[in-house]
Amino acid sequence: MEKVNLREKFERIHDHWHPRIAAEVSGMYVKLVKVQGEFEWHYHEGEDELFWVVSGRLLLQFRDREVWLEPGELLVVPRGVEHRPVAPEEVELVLLEPAVTLHTGNIVTARTVTELEWI
Amino acid sequence: MEKVNLREKFERIHDHWHPRIAAEVSGMYVKLVKVQGEFEWHYHEGEDELFWVVSGRLLLQFRDREVWLEPGELLVVPRGVEHRPVAPEEVELVLLEPAVTLHTGNIVTARTVTELEWI
Repeated sequence: MEKVNLREKFERIHDHWHPRIAAEVSGMYVKLVKVQGEFEWHYHEGEDELFWVVSGRLLLQFRDREVWLEPGELLVVPRGVEHRPVAPEEVELVLLEPAVTLHTGNIVTARTVTELEWI
Repeated sequence: MEKVNLREKFERIHDHWHPRIAAEVSGMYVKLVKVQGEFEWHYHEGEDELFWVVSGRLLLQFRDREVWLEPGELLVVPRGVEHRPVAPEEVELVLLEPAVTLHTGNIVTARTVTELEWI
């Protein structure tokens, strides 16, 4: 039962699109990730996914609209909804999703991280 | 699928120890609450609970130790572990816990909120 300092954790991340686990709470993972550039279009069949912007600006694209998230803003993408995160500049993100979730959802790419590490 | 701005939501809260739901993700609630003073000792039999300090300083007391949480710090209290939150000055907190969780855990007091509202 150790506390987690988000700033310290983010300073240890030096790559993009590689989520790491910062905490687990009742079967959900709190993951930290830095992102930059465009991700793949994907959806999660059985799990919702929460995006929480800590720094930077994240564009979440959906097939019918798009939403900019600023620091201190969050959005839940419901299961089954196709989405694509886009970060023109580096963004620090907290993700909240069930422990079973693959971040690339229904697709597997070179970026897919299947063995999640803790940070 | 609306985004949530935490600052705006917190500015609408004018009471203490009364958590409100800001988001739901796969059966977990993201709750916002302002706290000040001492809460009751309690535990949650079946659910973990995540405390995330947004502003202020929170003391989490356990039977054998205590932890101060600063802004940007979080701690997961595992199920079954007795704890007591103490806030000498006002603290803005994000709580993350299964939708079934009562914030006062195994005890019911005048502060227990059983019908959670969304904010």
